[in-house]
Amino acid sequence: MFSGAQISLYPMCDDFVGVILGALSAFDPYRANFRIETDDISTLIVGPPEQLFPAMRDLFALAAASGVHCVLSATVSRGCPGEPDDPICTPISGGSHELPLAARIGAARAHVDAAEKLGQEVAAQFSLYPLGEGHHMDEIYGCIDFLKTSGVFDKSKNFCTKLRGDAGPVFATLSEAFLRFGAPQGHVALDLTVSANSPSLR
Amino acid sequence: MFSGAQISLYPMCDDFVGVILGALSAFDPYRANFRIETDDISTLIVGPPEQLFPAMRDLFALAAASGVHCVLSATVSRGCPGEPDDPICTPISGGSHELPLAARIGAARAHVDAAEKLGQEVAAQFSLYPLGEGHHMDEIYGCIDFLKTSGVFDKSKNFCTKLRGDAGPVFATLSEAFLRFGAPQGHVALDLTVSANSPSLR
Repeated sequence: MFSGAQISLYPMCDDFVGVILGALSAFDPYRANFRIETDDISTLIVGPPEQLFPAMRDLFALAAASGVHCVLSATVSRGCPGEPDDPICTPISGGSHELPLAARIGAARAHVDAAEKLGQEVAAQFSLYPLGEGHHMDEIYGCIDFLKTSGVFDKSKNFCTKLRGDAGPVFATLSEAFLRFGAPQGHVALDLTVSANSPSLR
Repeated sequence: MFSGAQISLYPMCDDFVGVILGALSAFDPYRANFRIETDDISTLIVGPPEQLFPAMRDLFALAAASGVHCVLSATVSRGCPGEPDDPICTPISGGSHELPLAARIGAARAHVDAAEKLGQEVAAQFSLYPLGEGHHMDEIYGCIDFLKTSGVFDKSKNFCTKLRGDAGPVFATLSEAFLRFGAPQGHVALDLTVSANSPSLR
């Protein structure tokens, strides 16, 4: 199954190039497992679905540690039938997809509870798109049930759900939403925005 | 049918607040038709589906005219069954959805050919998600056929398609992709990134 993400990092400062280049070392532990390609809009990472959100978490946490208002935006996808299978994208391990929705919600919450805190506060919002099957809203509503008990749920918004909290459990929650909902070998896309150090009022 | 977008504008400069506030006047001609709500991550616009991309175009073109490297990121949606119908979201007019895919591609191209140029070069990439129906890849491939003859097609990338050209025809192409493909009353989402004044090599 092909899985990966198109990632962009936006530091809101004159030295945005310096902040981006300074954060890229966070990818070093993942480079052996990923294919990485960059152009003027985004960086593609292709690799195991379980490692996509940890890699984005580490990249974003390092950029946000600069203190600058930073945003990470990503289009994350697994199982797209338009992409060739890639040998570095391994199947989802321990995905418990054979379980009914309620049991998957419990498994996802346990993973979030075990997530290490990083000491970096973030806000995030995302949309989940389980594609090409008849019951896509059931999976979305099941995922929303999980999010509401994740400990980092902020609020529902039109077209998306907003999270807030430490980067560790926030990215763990995003990863669980991506991995455990929608058909296990199906086509699932996720549209993500994560923000830190914003001067705006909540 | 409920339609709208969650929009974020990212000027990569120390005075990002000034650039954002300076661009907001571009929304003035649309305010009477839209409901607009802002928080620390994004601004929601809810209104007629045909006006969503013109409003985003004018906002982004005004921000980009500052010369600063700017990115607009948006999650655009129509027909989401989880949202209540809103009286300010009118049905798609002249959508020609009764036509077969090949005829819709021709109609979309005619709209793009008629788009006024703004003198602002942009790069854009987006993903289209026609949700909850069996033939979602047919609509995606049909949309890609349209994009390749739009005059602003740049390249296909993993998970998305990249456009490049004047902001006028680029946003017209995005609007046509959103309005003319997927079921007319169906649930369609579009995940968008537009960039201007990037110092990166293509």
